[in-house]
Amino acid sequence: MISKNQLKLLRALNQKKQRKAHGLFLVEGEKNVLELIDSTLVVKQIFATSEFLDQNPQLMSRFECIEASLDELTKASSLVSNNAAVAVVEIPSVTAPKAEGLMIALDGVSDPGNLGTIIRVADWYGIKHIVASSDCADPYNPKTIRATMGSFGRVQVSQLDLPAYLAGSGLPIYGAFLAGESVHSTDFQSEGILLMGSESHGVREEAEKLVTHKITIPAFGGAESLNVAMATGIILDNFRRQHG
Amino acid sequence: MISKNQLKLLRALNQKKQRKAHGLFLVEGEKNVLELIDSTLVVKQIFATSEFLDQNPQLMSRFECIEASLDELTKASSLVSNNAAVAVVEIPSVTAPKAEGLMIALDGVSDPGNLGTIIRVADWYGIKHIVASSDCADPYNPKTIRATMGSFGRVQVSQLDLPAYLAGSGLPIYGAFLAGESVHSTDFQSEGILLMGSESHGVREEAEKLVTHKITIPAFGGAESLNVAMATGIILDNFRRQHG
Repeated sequence: MISKNQLKLLRALNQKKQRKAHGLFLVEGEKNVLELIDSTLVVKQIFATSEFLDQNPQLMSRFECIEASLDELTKASSLVSNNAAVAVVEIPSVTAPKAEGLMIALDGVSDPGNLGTIIRVADWYGIKHIVASSDCADPYNPKTIRATMGSFGRVQVSQLDLPAYLAGSGLPIYGAFLAGESVHSTDFQSEGILLMGSESHGVREEAEKLVTHKITIPAFGGAESLNVAMATGIILDNFRRQHG
Repeated sequence: MISKNQLKLLRALNQKKQRKAHGLFLVEGEKNVLELIDSTLVVKQIFATSEFLDQNPQLMSRFECIEASLDELTKASSLVSNNAAVAVVEIPSVTAPKAEGLMIALDGVSDPGNLGTIIRVADWYGIKHIVASSDCADPYNPKTIRATMGSFGRVQVSQLDLPAYLAGSGLPIYGAFLAGESVHSTDFQSEGILLMGSESHGVREEAEKLVTHKITIPAFGGAESLNVAMATGIILDNFRRQHG
């Protein structure tokens, strides 16, 4: 059973301010909760149905698990109507990653769902680090975590002073613009930072002036733009075909 | 002002049954409504704020426009909190397209947002026709239309008996699977049908046996799968780099 205080905490963690104050975030949904087994994240508690706990005995042996009905779990979750498991997890302390290999930089990507989808496709293409401007969506927003479909444990997102980080990286910076060299003909270097801007405003000037290569996804039809997560995935695919 | 009967109609059109009964669908949001100007779709009425109508005089000259407050429009819309325009549009009668060029086939893609995102990326890559199994999401669902970001007017979606259509198409059928030839090394023919399955179940057996080429997006990291719209975009990009 979920106690009143526990329910209060679960609900509070839907708010960024409360996540920061408690140093905790929520991992919702069966697939996401199971990803915690192999991750290095510190799990405080898992609330789950008895069926889910029976099916996944590794959870009981590794974590503090509290049995709850589907009804209770649904009430505790802001996101889904049918949620068999919710975990309360410590927000890890992340330091700015060393600039090396292939990385992603996000300038003002404010939609949590887009950020989560970018984390998922980054994981597909083996990217370990995303650096994000401080006004990007919160990587620990439940909507972000959910959209990662389990990839949140394998990709580190660091919010930081993006122009300063880019300036000091020493890597080529590939910025995605509506006009630039086609990614079909770009000769990508083996290391680099892919810089994506927000869908409504694109890459801002402060970051734009640090771009060493402006690239674009060639268009063949009438659409004016692509969703930022979609564009990220397509560019990563073009990079990886040269540097797998 | 939106009359009571008009409001009733606007609300009713959020339901598939009512869209079918009236032969009408909703186009919500400023960008989507403006796309109607250049489309061949038959617009019954546009409800919009006076500011929006003033800024876009082409609307007044071409269509029956009814001025409404932002508050009224928000009440009439199920989707967005800030909606300056809603159009009521006739559902066009579509016939199954001739099988030629590059096309997309969808088998059981049931999420309206995914379908809309697929329509948008199809439009980016110049695809004119999507054929969809009858259990796919409704192309006239307001969530679908919204996710197309205006591309709904340039890409025709036909719901039909998918296996029968594929069997009679005479085109190579490229089916997306988790195991298949890498799209980075596939030698695509100049015409073909890209077949995508639902994210939870993939391509079903009846369609799978008609696939002439099983293809896959190579993975480099830990994610188990990609969103179906994302995967569609990445494969289209790989096709277009060979046949632009």
